Amino acid sequence: MDQRVVGAGGFGDGGDPVAGSRSGPVLSRLGRGAEFDLIRGFYRGARRGGTGGVRIGAGDDCAVVVGESIAISADLSIEGVHFRRTWLSPEEIGYRAAVAALSDLAAMAARPIGILASLAVTPDDAVVIADSLMLGVRRAVEGVGGELLGGDLTRSPGPVILDIVVVGEAASPVLRSGAKAGDEVWVTGTLGGAAAAVRAWGSGAVPESTLRERFAAPTARVREALWLAERTLPRAMIDLSDGLAGDLEHLAAASGVAIVLQSDAVPVHPAAATASKSIEDAFELAIRGGEDYEICFAVRPGSLVPHQADFERSFGVPLTRIGTVEAGAGVFLEGTEGRTPLPPPGFAHFDGPD
Amino acid sequence: MDQRVVGAGGFGDGGDPVAGSRSGPVLSRLGRGAEFDLIRGFYRGARRGGTGGVRIGAGDDCAVVVGESIAISADLSIEGVHFRRTWLSPEEIGYRAAVAALSDLAAMAARPIGILASLAVTPDDAVVIADSLMLGVRRAVEGVGGELLGGDLTRSPGPVILDIVVVGEAASPVLRSGAKAGDEVWVTGTLGGAAAAVRAWGSGAVPESTLRERFAAPTARVREALWLAERTLPRAMIDLSDGLAGDLEHLAAASGVAIVLQSDAVPVHPAAATASKSIEDAFELAIRGGEDYEICFAVRPGSLVPHQADFERSFGVPLTRIGTVEAGAGVFLEGTEGRTPLPPPGFAHFDGPD
Repeated sequence: MDQRVVGAGGFGDGGDPVAGSRSGPVLSRLGRGAEFDLIRGFYRGARRGGTGGVRIGAGDDCAVVVGESIAISADLSIEGVHFRRTWLSPEEIGYRAAVAALSDLAAMAARPIGILASLAVTPDDAVVIADSLMLGVRRAVEGVGGELLGGDLTRSPGPVILDIVVVGEAASPVLRSGAKAGDEVWVTGTLGGAAAAVRAWGSGAVPESTLRERFAAPTARVREALWLAERTLPRAMIDLSDGLAGDLEHLAAASGVAIVLQSDAVPVHPAAATASKSIEDAFELAIRGGEDYEICFAVRPGSLVPHQADFERSFGVPLTRIGTVEAGAGVFLEGTEGRTPLPPPGFAHFDGPD
Repeated sequence: MDQRVVGAGGFGDGGDPVAGSRSGPVLSRLGRGAEFDLIRGFYRGARRGGTGGVRIGAGDDCAVVVGESIAISADLSIEGVHFRRTWLSPEEIGYRAAVAALSDLAAMAARPIGILASLAVTPDDAVVIADSLMLGVRRAVEGVGGELLGGDLTRSPGPVILDIVVVGEAASPVLRSGAKAGDEVWVTGTLGGAAAAVRAWGSGAVPESTLRERFAAPTARVREALWLAERTLPRAMIDLSDGLAGDLEHLAAASGVAIVLQSDAVPVHPAAATASKSIEDAFELAIRGGEDYEICFAVRPGSLVPHQADFERSFGVPLTRIGTVEAGAGVFLEGTEGRTPLPPPGFAHFDGPD
């Protein structure tokens, strides 16, 4: 750049100037400046017009989408809170942040249209990692048939901040509120892997490779959810972001029912079990550890079993029946020692330390 | 709260645990925990079902909206970058962040449906200011006929971070790309007020009250844009977030035209002019200072003048013709000394300091 204009409309005080580019989604035909060159780079080789539904993509003040019914969710990923740079590559950070958001589309059985990504980094990081972060975001969204609808870049005072907005078509959204007494509760995949990786890092160790993979490269169960919804199987659904215990509590509360979890049915990630000092410890990882991004859903009794083998063959992902829906409220654990109410949900990270 | 579960799925390392609630939009029927009590508070007394268009509001994994054509934009506001807490009250911070995002809907002449707000604060701030921040967000969106479609709360390692996603109906979106040679360029309101306030704070002074108001409580020109679009007046439109100079450059680039700005026509905010040491200085504030959130648009020659008095009477906001569209590229300044190309846009805050 041969010319420059510095922060705060030119009013930097030398310390921490307040400067915010407020550009909306931007693309190829922008004004000059290093910031816009960076943003243009986000779209290099990007897939466009993937699934349809995009009327106006990146490059104007808003993205404009069309569809029968549009599902939207936003998800913040913040360095030091949701990830650490010592754990993941920049591309993995972007990929994982996007999967976390896309998982909310899966939870509703919505078909992804695209992502708007707002990225905040320090000026140094902008040069070094912004491109890789956005490449990860794009890989995630393009992998489920969507496209990058907008990318915005802002200065951060320190931590990398990624806000991912997912947009999808949800003509027949599966809500959290449709579970009925008598339904079965099922879950995809295995649980506790991501949490086991976090625990390993937290204790100064290196997680076993499949555990690291569960944290660094989770899959948003978009295709799986669409497959199930096409067969009108799930009556209520949620994705597992806060941890099975907490997310079941959300499902139970939204549906106005009780959920009884069979403790010996919970599919613990094999490597998480190996890495745990006891069966109880592994079970805690599986029900309390968040960010597995599996989907959990209620179906009419007996309705899923005829499809189970077909599903597992199609996706290479196990389906496990983990509990039942009853009249009442709350989540209960049923094991060898009978039935007990589950303590409060997943992690409530604003509760005080005492 | 009589029970608690601490960060990172229970794996806090005592220092900076990695803990992220990934809940999507949430509402009243959630599990227990202080975090969800806080989030529930965001909706206390909230307006619901305002303009229609909302199929599923807050409380599930995604919000679901219906409309002919849905416009979506996201905007990050970060403490120390876009605002300082010493300048604004928490409610003003939330209000201003929401207006910045709603302004992108105005720029497309989209009718607001609602906002999804992701808020990241420290645990201490969660108790003290989260409610006020969200009250400000709600006041902004409810003021233009929309509603809060989702509110999410995450832990921040320090700065207050607000990501605002705006959703609107844009059956006939006004793009940046429709300006044609011969068109007139107009702007609403006056410019430079917000930047003059930032400059005052930056020099340790207290901004004059109308300038402070321009920064703290801007108006998203949603109604004004809809009024103009109903009369099919704007052929291309943008909101002024990066500063007039930079935003005109975006408009010119998107439309593949040149824009010639009449320097003596630029409507400088009166108090910004008073606070400036020279006419040139005031002019720089008006064209370089960002975040005025006025709208700037191109119209067919002569088409706007018959409506000008009606507009100004309806909204109490002046309309000013500031330039013309020509064949070519770039933005030029025409004044007493002839025509000169404008230096690069607004502020490019990732350009280096030398």
